[in-house]
Amino acid sequence: MRKDPLVSRWVMFAPDRGQRPINVLAHSVTIPADRDPFAEGNESETPPELLAYRNQDSRPNGPGWRVRVVPNKFPALQIEGDLQQREQGIYTSGLGLGSHEVIIECPHSETNMSRLSIDNIGEVLSAYKHRLLTLKCDPRFVHALIFKNKGALAGASLPHCHSQLMATSFVPPAIEDELDGALQYFRDRNVSIFEDMIQQELAVGTRVVLNTDSFLVFCPFASRCPFETWILPKRQGSHFENIAAPMIETLARVLKSVLRQLECALDDPPYNYFIHSAPLNRPELPYYLWHMELLPRITHVAGFELGTGCFINPILPEQAATILRAIMPN
Amino acid sequence: MRKDPLVSRWVMFAPDRGQRPINVLAHSVTIPADRDPFAEGNESETPPELLAYRNQDSRPNGPGWRVRVVPNKFPALQIEGDLQQREQGIYTSGLGLGSHEVIIECPHSETNMSRLSIDNIGEVLSAYKHRLLTLKCDPRFVHALIFKNKGALAGASLPHCHSQLMATSFVPPAIEDELDGALQYFRDRNVSIFEDMIQQELAVGTRVVLNTDSFLVFCPFASRCPFETWILPKRQGSHFENIAAPMIETLARVLKSVLRQLECALDDPPYNYFIHSAPLNRPELPYYLWHMELLPRITHVAGFELGTGCFINPILPEQAATILRAIMPN
Repeated sequence: MRKDPLVSRWVMFAPDRGQRPINVLAHSVTIPADRDPFAEGNESETPPELLAYRNQDSRPNGPGWRVRVVPNKFPALQIEGDLQQREQGIYTSGLGLGSHEVIIECPHSETNMSRLSIDNIGEVLSAYKHRLLTLKCDPRFVHALIFKNKGALAGASLPHCHSQLMATSFVPPAIEDELDGALQYFRDRNVSIFEDMIQQELAVGTRVVLNTDSFLVFCPFASRCPFETWILPKRQGSHFENIAAPMIETLARVLKSVLRQLECALDDPPYNYFIHSAPLNRPELPYYLWHMELLPRITHVAGFELGTGCFINPILPEQAATILRAIMPN
Repeated sequence: MRKDPLVSRWVMFAPDRGQRPINVLAHSVTIPADRDPFAEGNESETPPELLAYRNQDSRPNGPGWRVRVVPNKFPALQIEGDLQQREQGIYTSGLGLGSHEVIIECPHSETNMSRLSIDNIGEVLSAYKHRLLTLKCDPRFVHALIFKNKGALAGASLPHCHSQLMATSFVPPAIEDELDGALQYFRDRNVSIFEDMIQQELAVGTRVVLNTDSFLVFCPFASRCPFETWILPKRQGSHFENIAAPMIETLARVLKSVLRQLECALDDPPYNYFIHSAPLNRPELPYYLWHMELLPRITHVAGFELGTGCFINPILPEQAATILRAIMPN
């Protein structure tokens, strides 16, 4: 890991990743359809599993699993080493310590999570939870991001349904920014910004996509990209890993529905989603709420965004929500 | 413009841009080769020109120009209106006031700036300078970013060589971050961080791509993406618009050389560049240096980058610089 001396931005260098299925110099990806290292029967093509939900009588690292978690074969972080930083003149670097894992979401060659059963998606979410609970026991890991890259334009190197987990020895800047903003709001008004957000979104209504007892799905007021969609739990909880079992099933239903709506509205777009959750080593925080952010990748980040840190969005969230609401997912 | 209430991130909404050549829902672009609204003879397809370098006896908005600046037909900002912000519950919005301009770099249908003559590139850089000097007279504009999107994957909607200028009523966060970091460094050590950076890069040498009397070209220590390349002027100057005429010619030479090296190394990649320069309404700053950042877009920003604000780079800048140095641009 290296830190930019001007803006203190950390970059992780993973030179080995030049060897992974996307050749770093290629502009597009072609994976032969008959080569799926994530399919059942090809377990030997991944590192040994960290967790698997298996049928009775099946053996670790053999067939008979439903969801399987393995270390990333081309990790951007490494699991061993110390955290000592190194100074060379104006520059600071350190070992990129962390755990980089792949959650293989189904045994068959399926590309779209939305086509998995509710039970299957529920087991994927359970795998997220259980990996986070395990990593939490290791004091070196202070944060973990669960994320998904769907489609080559969203950064996926393999089409088989999968998500990833990246545990780091520091709290990433995007999470720090959210924690700072949420704490400031809480100090100023003695109420969680997420609570106020849910109330205001429900009162206004124009950006709401789906509203259930447990979750609010909406296109955020300052959406960075067309059809950005957030899933917010309605009950307090700063850490995703503390989600209760019945909530997992509900979230699976909601997630399947939202993914189908986005796929229908945007003709199976590339997308990313991630779960923002409080640091592993912090207690329950009354001012923060874990949530999922889904970002379809139908426009390209360009020079203005890279050069300013601002975003330009050609679609209002109210327009996007209207389109999404009109789609009956089932 | 709308502000995210959690992280105070501004997003500009430009619903009209849904009408521009890239349909917002399309994943790729196809522009018929015979339709080039930026070509000489098609001046009526753009709004009236703001600046043009013309041959004698030619008329405004007719043929006979070499470089031409026009308002963006699908602007992300609008030139008229007041700056009053509006509060609605937890949300803040405001009118996106600014100037969004297109610098058409040549009259013929050329896609690559690197194939333009040194004189031609010099006139493009002069156009940047003169538009900034003009916009500086309007106190509503406090910053302007010059940037280029080359190739559809880098956000270009038209293949004809062009760059853009976006003047804003606020200093964008990426510039604020650089100014803050540079000021902090200057206060701590009484020397400009850019001066120390140039010295250290020259002493180490492994990241240097090109070193001339006036400019240092190098791959930065914490490069965000493969082959990220910076052009730093060696003489003090916080504002690009104050660049002297002889320096413009040298910069044109250096820029052409660097673009050809990147194109040769990466097989004509999509790329972005932008010029980071101090706010228009600030005096010369001893701690800041204007500079160009070039970012080839050969990998995709994915869920981890969007979810954390950190970057993963599969290529070390030392590897990239070695490859670039080995290419003789002429």
